Amino acid sequence: MLTVYSEEHALHAGGAELNAGALVPSYEVPSRVEVILARVRSAGLGPVVAPEDHGLGPVERVHSPRFLEFLSTAWEQWHACGHREAALPQIWPSRHLRAVEPDNIVGKLGYYCFDASTPLVAGTWRAAYAAAQVALSAAGRLASQGARRERAAFALCRPPGHHAASDLYGGYCFLNNAAIAAQALRDAGAARVAVLDVDYHHGNGTQAIFYDRSDVLFLSLHCEPRTEFPFFLGYADERGAGEGEGYNVNYPLPRGSDFGAWSEALEDACRRIERHAPDALVISLGVDTYKGDPVGSFRLESADFATYGRRLAQLRRPTVFVMEGGYAVEEIGINAVNVLQGFDEASG
Amino acid sequence: MLTVYSEEHALHAGGAELNAGALVPSYEVPSRVEVILARVRSAGLGPVVAPEDHGLGPVERVHSPRFLEFLSTAWEQWHACGHREAALPQIWPSRHLRAVEPDNIVGKLGYYCFDASTPLVAGTWRAAYAAAQVALSAAGRLASQGARRERAAFALCRPPGHHAASDLYGGYCFLNNAAIAAQALRDAGAARVAVLDVDYHHGNGTQAIFYDRSDVLFLSLHCEPRTEFPFFLGYADERGAGEGEGYNVNYPLPRGSDFGAWSEALEDACRRIERHAPDALVISLGVDTYKGDPVGSFRLESADFATYGRRLAQLRRPTVFVMEGGYAVEEIGINAVNVLQGFDEASG
Repeated sequence: MLTVYSEEHALHAGGAELNAGALVPSYEVPSRVEVILARVRSAGLGPVVAPEDHGLGPVERVHSPRFLEFLSTAWEQWHACGHREAALPQIWPSRHLRAVEPDNIVGKLGYYCFDASTPLVAGTWRAAYAAAQVALSAAGRLASQGARRERAAFALCRPPGHHAASDLYGGYCFLNNAAIAAQALRDAGAARVAVLDVDYHHGNGTQAIFYDRSDVLFLSLHCEPRTEFPFFLGYADERGAGEGEGYNVNYPLPRGSDFGAWSEALEDACRRIERHAPDALVISLGVDTYKGDPVGSFRLESADFATYGRRLAQLRRPTVFVMEGGYAVEEIGINAVNVLQGFDEASG
Repeated sequence: MLTVYSEEHALHAGGAELNAGALVPSYEVPSRVEVILARVRSAGLGPVVAPEDHGLGPVERVHSPRFLEFLSTAWEQWHACGHREAALPQIWPSRHLRAVEPDNIVGKLGYYCFDASTPLVAGTWRAAYAAAQVALSAAGRLASQGARRERAAFALCRPPGHHAASDLYGGYCFLNNAAIAAQALRDAGAARVAVLDVDYHHGNGTQAIFYDRSDVLFLSLHCEPRTEFPFFLGYADERGAGEGEGYNVNYPLPRGSDFGAWSEALEDACRRIERHAPDALVISLGVDTYKGDPVGSFRLESADFATYGRRLAQLRRPTVFVMEGGYAVEEIGINAVNVLQGFDEASG
């Protein structure tokens, strides 16, 4: 399988996140994708290429221009106010308040970001932009003609994307790489797309982006949000709205779920994907479902990742894997590449 | 003037707040009210008495039982999860998310608190409860018969209250002492009450509590929320809703405003209060309008506080002063007591 990767991810590094009342170094570190890249190479998964620059056009198909303007200038605004730490919001337009965008950068951060766990630093915008280009380039290879066409591709993105909505970031995510890829596939001619999110956490951003649409089916397997981040989305009764009614499917699973429970949900999701008959499939690939993940509670073994990779191949769709979460850094390479190798084996 | 004070405020101490990407000791420290108390005594303002315990009944007239249940058990829930720092939320039900109350304490904190600047510690509930009793006791003396009846009283509350809504806390505030006092005055027979908030920050909680009511007129002079905390409420177009239409009046003033601009707004507010003809008046007394305040930008001099205290006395209403913000600790006693002495002088 082809892997698309950009070194620019490393520009996003060094921030702290608020966790249990303390500021701690973010779990979302550059070494995550470096370990995956090393495994891609050592396992002989396939070629690794740099992304092409598709510009902001396809990003604006998912994110509002005003949000992009904010994200691309937020560090400058923050820094100009004399702040030297990584930017974190400290107040939010919560219940009993109005969702107005203030002029002040502290207020703007609260307007555009839903948590205090997503540090924004000097290099964040360039890294997030590069991650979106990685996802677009991987999706582009599925839609290409001739020798460049791939059955599947791996977008080794960082920072991740699935928690980011059209004009909202958080959960370590700034631009929704998977949603940008899905929209690009639609724009390249795919009449129907499915996005399957297998990250431990609900893909609230992707859900919000496609919630009222029937052309992009969104399915997410994740830990029950009553008990886990992002807490405020990902419930089973969220089924889509308007034309999108029935095209949003959440599988909240109890804390501590093992591969048995998880793969039952996956099986149901696969059947729904088959009924949707998408022209292309986007997998939001988080491997924080692993038993050893420091932020997760599920109990998947490394071998289970290969097993479900094989199941995904049986859907027989052009497929782009977009890297999301996974914080057990030592095993992240094995687990992520196991999915891709399992997929390749079963596609042969 | 009579002052009501409880030592239990000191149980709420020691937490850090998220400020410009760093955790710093909270500006809202116990010495704030201790300095005011010392000034009350040295200036000979009048007697200082302990509050009576009015129980939770009058608090429940303003705050939902579910919120009170949460606040009174939040520290235990947090501590039971192994957390040892002061409790701060880290994710919020912001735009594109649902305002559902999760089971997990981290999610609950985000549901019930709108910022990351309001540390909750082991003694917070007892201190907040005591502050509400201080406000109730002060209001009670206005409503008393015979020798106990006072024309005015000073509720030396801490933690402050005006940012807290019916089921939401934040901005250093847990229970809305001023709103609880206003409601108690209504329940004791006052047909109409006015709450005038002179704190540097908008009294978003008080506004939210009385927004659809015509019996409690709410007026707030504060720094323009586009540029200042709480950012997401306090705009001039918020005029009340339903029966409350026209009974909410905001005076957002530019950063750096001096007493000239400020007292013009106060004069308009006083005329509106006169037209409302309230049977009782509640002043949310924040003195962070002072030129030396570390969190404010206004430029009031210490003498200006006495000047506006005299103006408030000219309204000739039974008046309860409820202490809110003010973070220039050295001068907080002089500034707060100047208001009360000015009031007493002009009431003579």
